[in-house]
Amino acid sequence: MKTKVQNISTFIGCHTNYEKSNLVLFGIPFDGTTSFRPGTRFAMQAIRSDSYGLESYSPYLDMDLEEQNIFDGGDLELALGNTEKVLQTIENFTVELLDDQKKFLMVGGEHLVSLPTIKATFEKYPNLHVIHIDAHTDLREDYLGEKLSHASVMRRCHEFLGDDRIFQFGIRSGLKEEFEWAKKHTHLEKFTLKTLPEVVAQLSNMPVYITIDLDVLDPGVFPGTGTPEPGGITYRELLQAIGTLQSLKHIVAADIVELSPQYDPSGASTAAACKTIREMLLILSK
Amino acid sequence: MKTKVQNISTFIGCHTNYEKSNLVLFGIPFDGTTSFRPGTRFAMQAIRSDSYGLESYSPYLDMDLEEQNIFDGGDLELALGNTEKVLQTIENFTVELLDDQKKFLMVGGEHLVSLPTIKATFEKYPNLHVIHIDAHTDLREDYLGEKLSHASVMRRCHEFLGDDRIFQFGIRSGLKEEFEWAKKHTHLEKFTLKTLPEVVAQLSNMPVYITIDLDVLDPGVFPGTGTPEPGGITYRELLQAIGTLQSLKHIVAADIVELSPQYDPSGASTAAACKTIREMLLILSK
Amino acid sequence: MKTKVQNISTFIGCHTNYEKSNLVLFGIPFDGTTSFRPGTRFAMQAIRSDSYGLESYSPYLDMDLEEQNIFDGGDLELALGNTEKVLQTIENFTVELLDDQKKFLMVGGEHLVSLPTIKATFEKYPNLHVIHIDAHTDLREDYLGEKLSHASVMRRCHEFLGDDRIFQFGIRSGLKEEFEWAKKHTHLEKFTLKTLPEVVAQLSNMPVYITIDLDVLDPGVFPGTGTPEPGGITYRELLQAIGTLQSLKHIVAADIVELSPQYDPSGASTAAACKTIREMLLILSK
Amino acid sequence: MKTKVQNISTFIGCHTNYEKSNLVLFGIPFDGTTSFRPGTRFAMQAIRSDSYGLESYSPYLDMDLEEQNIFDGGDLELALGNTEKVLQTIENFTVELLDDQKKFLMVGGEHLVSLPTIKATFEKYPNLHVIHIDAHTDLREDYLGEKLSHASVMRRCHEFLGDDRIFQFGIRSGLKEEFEWAKKHTHLEKFTLKTLPEVVAQLSNMPVYITIDLDVLDPGVFPGTGTPEPGGITYRELLQAIGTLQSLKHIVAADIVELSPQYDPSGASTAAACKTIREMLLILSK
Amino acid sequence: MKTKVQNISTFIGCHTNYEKSNLVLFGIPFDGTTSFRPGTRFAMQAIRSDSYGLESYSPYLDMDLEEQNIFDGGDLELALGNTEKVLQTIENFTVELLDDQKKFLMVGGEHLVSLPTIKATFEKYPNLHVIHIDAHTDLREDYLGEKLSHASVMRRCHEFLGDDRIFQFGIRSGLKEEFEWAKKHTHLEKFTLKTLPEVVAQLSNMPVYITIDLDVLDPGVFPGTGTPEPGGITYRELLQAIGTLQSLKHIVAADIVELSPQYDPSGASTAAACKTIREMLLILSK
Amino acid sequence: MKTKVQNISTFIGCHTNYEKSNLVLFGIPFDGTTSFRPGTRFAMQAIRSDSYGLESYSPYLDMDLEEQNIFDGGDLELALGNTEKVLQTIENFTVELLDDQKKFLMVGGEHLVSLPTIKATFEKYPNLHVIHIDAHTDLREDYLGEKLSHASVMRRCHEFLGDDRIFQFGIRSGLKEEFEWAKKHTHLEKFTLKTLPEVVAQLSNMPVYITIDLDVLDPGVFPGTGTPEPGGITYRELLQAIGTLQSLKHIVAADIVELSPQYDPSGASTAAACKTIREMLLILSK
Repeated sequence: MKTKVQNISTFIGCHTNYEKSNLVLFGIPFDGTTSFRPGTRFAMQAIRSDSYGLESYSPYLDMDLEEQNIFDGGDLELALGNTEKVLQTIENFTVELLDDQKKFLMVGGEHLVSLPTIKATFEKYPNLHVIHIDAHTDLREDYLGEKLSHASVMRRCHEFLGDDRIFQFGIRSGLKEEFEWAKKHTHLEKFTLKTLPEVVAQLSNMPVYITIDLDVLDPGVFPGTGTPEPGGITYRELLQAIGTLQSLKHIVAADIVELSPQYDPSGASTAAACKTIREMLLILSK
Repeated sequence: MKTKVQNISTFIGCHTNYEKSNLVLFGIPFDGTTSFRPGTRFAMQAIRSDSYGLESYSPYLDMDLEEQNIFDGGDLELALGNTEKVLQTIENFTVELLDDQKKFLMVGGEHLVSLPTIKATFEKYPNLHVIHIDAHTDLREDYLGEKLSHASVMRRCHEFLGDDRIFQFGIRSGLKEEFEWAKKHTHLEKFTLKTLPEVVAQLSNMPVYITIDLDVLDPGVFPGTGTPEPGGITYRELLQAIGTLQSLKHIVAADIVELSPQYDPSGASTAAACKTIREMLLILSK
Repeated sequence: MKTKVQNISTFIGCHTNYEKSNLVLFGIPFDGTTSFRPGTRFAMQAIRSDSYGLESYSPYLDMDLEEQNIFDGGDLELALGNTEKVLQTIENFTVELLDDQKKFLMVGGEHLVSLPTIKATFEKYPNLHVIHIDAHTDLREDYLGEKLSHASVMRRCHEFLGDDRIFQFGIRSGLKEEFEWAKKHTHLEKFTLKTLPEVVAQLSNMPVYITIDLDVLDPGVFPGTGTPEPGGITYRELLQAIGTLQSLKHIVAADIVELSPQYDPSGASTAAACKTIREMLLILSK
Repeated sequence: MKTKVQNISTFIGCHTNYEKSNLVLFGIPFDGTTSFRPGTRFAMQAIRSDSYGLESYSPYLDMDLEEQNIFDGGDLELALGNTEKVLQTIENFTVELLDDQKKFLMVGGEHLVSLPTIKATFEKYPNLHVIHIDAHTDLREDYLGEKLSHASVMRRCHEFLGDDRIFQFGIRSGLKEEFEWAKKHTHLEKFTLKTLPEVVAQLSNMPVYITIDLDVLDPGVFPGTGTPEPGGITYRELLQAIGTLQSLKHIVAADIVELSPQYDPSGASTAAACKTIREMLLILSK
Repeated sequence: MKTKVQNISTFIGCHTNYEKSNLVLFGIPFDGTTSFRPGTRFAMQAIRSDSYGLESYSPYLDMDLEEQNIFDGGDLELALGNTEKVLQTIENFTVELLDDQKKFLMVGGEHLVSLPTIKATFEKYPNLHVIHIDAHTDLREDYLGEKLSHASVMRRCHEFLGDDRIFQFGIRSGLKEEFEWAKKHTHLEKFTLKTLPEVVAQLSNMPVYITIDLDVLDPGVFPGTGTPEPGGITYRELLQAIGTLQSLKHIVAADIVELSPQYDPSGASTAAACKTIREMLLILSK
Repeated sequence: MKTKVQNISTFIGCHTNYEKSNLVLFGIPFDGTTSFRPGTRFAMQAIRSDSYGLESYSPYLDMDLEEQNIFDGGDLELALGNTEKVLQTIENFTVELLDDQKKFLMVGGEHLVSLPTIKATFEKYPNLHVIHIDAHTDLREDYLGEKLSHASVMRRCHEFLGDDRIFQFGIRSGLKEEFEWAKKHTHLEKFTLKTLPEVVAQLSNMPVYITIDLDVLDPGVFPGTGTPEPGGITYRELLQAIGTLQSLKHIVAADIVELSPQYDPSGASTAAACKTIREMLLILSK
């Protein structure tokens, strides 16, 4: 019989096998330190399924996913309840990818999962710079005594990256001390992305990791997240920013985090995640 | 007894009877070719009910539905599962309306239902031009082998309208070949409505049919649709466009399609549809 | 690298490949004639995903899916809007399965999809008997003039099966004429399943096809369906019925239809479908 | 043109006009004293629409709504915020119906709306007895000082009906003093409906008003209500009770209250209300 | 034992006791005249709980709630069904607050609850001016004969405030006569807030009461309200307006009304309310 | 001013202060090891709020919460992501309660939180017996390598309790090896609670801890849980079981776990939890 096995599910347009691919998409269904409303563990499953409501062709970039060599590596299987072990598993996996000379786009999960992927990337590219687009500073020293928290992820990254390596945009929420701390240790633009072009110009030849917390979007367009923060950017502004990021010559990896699809049953938030993934996969494929 | 029968339900302000009306509102609860997420069949019922959360007076146009002569003709009753038969029924109904010298505003249903209403209108007005406001090109040759699909409706219309009759605005999704095809056969503006004023000026004396796929709106303001596509226009931009359309001297008919109310239980999407219907009814009444 | 591809999704415990399997599970995501509330197209995707909230072991039957040889063949890809073509595609697929000497469990989709699978099975087993567990008679001559409707599926099956081959249980809704018609042509038990043991005894050596419309369950336990009909059976009664069905020596195929998962976001209805599938797969494996 | 006006909406099978009808169905969309969760104002609109998911034929009673003479009188239009005025409007309307020799089935709204309909019925039938099926005693002297409350409706009815006229079944919630008070003034059966047959036998020649608060049903089968109270009766038990009520020779009116459809988006609760209305309309038509 | 009682719930950062506070936050869970969709009674409970998803620090104003002296006084307990009594209770409570020299921020509830708080404030400050930010005129003479309605609240306030005291912004819905009436009696800006800076300049030394109906926001960002009206302002525009209001030297009280949290289960609307409350509490604290 | 602080929220009828109470109610908002669908962290907040839809009087037990001395101690504040630390915190808290000679009813949270409360209770009462009512065995040796999992809680308890101390009822899901293991180490009744009376008789003079996983209920009546398992007990059967438990002379503590309120927005599941808490508080108060 010639029955096709239909039940392999990938993100639209990502069917290249691992060996032939130069870019790997994978998911990390982890929300174990989310204090307020969990659910980012469900993101990647919703994203794969709903990606078929999207086209693989981008009229913004005039590129098509079908013409790239992208492997969808599925999701990491993770034991819950033991955060350190989880982060180690992610880091090991990322090291393997980088050893195999793959670029990657990781999809969270909560923002803490960027810590091991940024760390592994930094180990390969010691001159790594991080562009961080988010509503929140994520610069807390700890959260209720826990150092490994999605509210602290950039602070933890700073511990190995050091000063002047983290560039934060769109930030509209945090403790007063986080904003104060940022003045000395990071580039932090409040509320908007206006300084992005000049930062991109400055980093154009550097190895760059891009981490996008989708809650930078206004909850009007992206309500499907754990901590909606009104007053965010529009989706057109995000598209424009991605257009700007194209000028970077050496994007080595990226991630997109904090979709909680169940808080937006309309699917609009998942659609926003899907479209952002498509655009980011395309600029990573250049 | 003087009991009033209360259970007649019309769109707010549309109580003129058929004979005295010069404008007819009607619904087509059909979503039979919707590939991704069905539900536009429920649009008109939700719209009639929620229209009472709106006022009949428009402060934008300084006009009131109560002062126009509009008949709400209810919904067509359609057999499901047999698309050709459905389209024929719609076309026959539309021919009758036009024979009776009525203008009309049809409310979908999925976008395929515009095919028979545009066709019937074209038969009466061979010089018909179509203004098409949408997120999607709708120019596919076919969808999984089916020529009658909501992804192909404008391509099917082109078969009888011919070149230079279709004007597309706000388009931000489609296959690469659809965008290529459009370059030769239609006016297609990507992403925005900026060229609308000049097109309106050009068509000001022509018979014009306006078809609005509400998914042109950003999913932030209009999540209640089958295929949300981020990066759309704001509701204010749509209001402005409708203001621009007022300059057309000969709008003969219009439609508003693709609300799926169940994907937005907040009612905001249905409210957007209601308000658009009110504004379009008012400019059709001029 | 030793990356596992995680994104193959099957029903829990169904990983045998096609060649080694003797039982095939597959889905038909079709709801094209559903008159009232569509959505059964989403059933199989929800079922595969939520099956992992279940165990593969049944304490009722003391059997484990992991110890059977079951292939999950994915879902048929179907063109929408053309019902006849869809049914032909399903029939062709089913014939192939039967030619390869496989038993099967089909998961709908609306009930009309049982027509081609029962027809194909009947062609192989001319002495086929059908056990039909449902809230509705499904014996309409037509629905709004359409003969191919989920309200007519058993009437269409009768056209080739003939009298005394259809055994209906749990029926609590239909036209008066359907109940009258059934008196002459089928075994129909209203409201309950009390006569199932005697029918099973009578059919114990016959080739039997079992079609379960899950709306036979009370909407309290199974609200996720297009036309909830209060007063149905409890889930324990369904489990007991499946226990009774074990005595049949020659079940050749079965189906489970009419889950619309989106009407029950709690997941309880999908869980009921999953558990029913597990139990039916196990008795088909005997 | 022969356009049919389709947008008259009635409950299924209730198209007789007022003059020819002997039974009137009408709705009271009032929830103004609901303390916990409002929403019964939306019941009748949902019921009319969803009644088309039901058949007009009852296999339980072997009767068909289409063969009765029932008028659907729509909903009363009521000013909110002034409870006394609302109740007076309802009472006046009910008096008119009774003066015209109509039986009626009223659909709430919250339970307080039974006060004016029972009062008007009592004025015509001074020997009136009331069968009250409910989860709650509804016998409070007042609620936060307000005497007109849905928690007090039966206590208010007792003020004109007097002792030994109210028969309460299925009651499983109330203040201790309400249960104590009931011992002296009403027949109150806790938890179940076991004494219904004997009460029906006793009242078989009396004029009887039946008031059914649907929250008597277990929240499993009827979650769509303001104050779900676990441990209620099954839908089959309610059907059996309605079967028992058939023996009453002189049912003069009835009501069905407390559906809040928005708390059960699956539609199962609305379906339960629709089916109960169908059965009650049929026994009122005898 | 040193068990802390944790189940006191206040808005984030509002733990000062009554005596030491100079600003009081309180809620009025009343929606008794809401004609279309009730639910504002649930606003304050959702707001208190979800405020912990927000930070107490505002990067817009560079101020922190924790450093102010704010008392969260809970919610008024109100009898439903008797609107006059409710309004009197609110007025009495407000008079007490003002007698104790407290400023206050009241959170509704429907807009009618602003009537008694504005009235009490006017009695203390006869030169009171009201800034009214809203989608709706709220200037109806009555609604279905009822003078006490949320659609009439500003008209009722005008009865004691008189001409040239009410300044309305963002208005995009109303009867034609309301807009006409406003031309003579209030300052009314349609659609936008452009004239706010000049009005603020004009009122900078006056006692001012600010009433914000959150439905002034576009339903895209604030779907959680009874009557969503498309075409509203963005959240950034509201933030800018609050920034402008800082220049007022004598804001004596304010309110924020018309959140119905259950219409937006994503929590985005509640988050918008929370953030607006934080910003308003901070400018009231100056 | 005499403003009452209204924003203390307790479970209905539980206002006694700690010192005077002999029974303490408290919540543990922890779901950190929940593998499938999290959300039990939201249970206690929903329960406190919705308990006011219930009466404090039980007509089943003829007892009133208002007449008992119960303290609602709020919820433990827990750091997420570090399970061992969380369990230690819970154990320490429980030891304090027991040292103060309090009985307690703990409300989860996922089932793993019963481990530290049972352990602390066992340390005070070495002869402790545990009655475990649940859909799942909870006897896994580990889950994906983690020993601290809600699927392993009873296995972990067995490590200190030993054989013949755990009595399991209603179990209908687990691995085959769990059922096998139980045959040697616990009393396990599959599917029903029929042996509960004899076990109660046997334990009547023993110190007993009762742990109720609410998913023992059929998902029809209790869909609000992470892993709905069809075929469960009815709410009436649970009420009957609680009635049976009354005969135990020495219930020292109890817990009720696994409500995830967000999966059942109707509130029916939360109502089931509230009523179960009321009944359990009353029998603990005897």
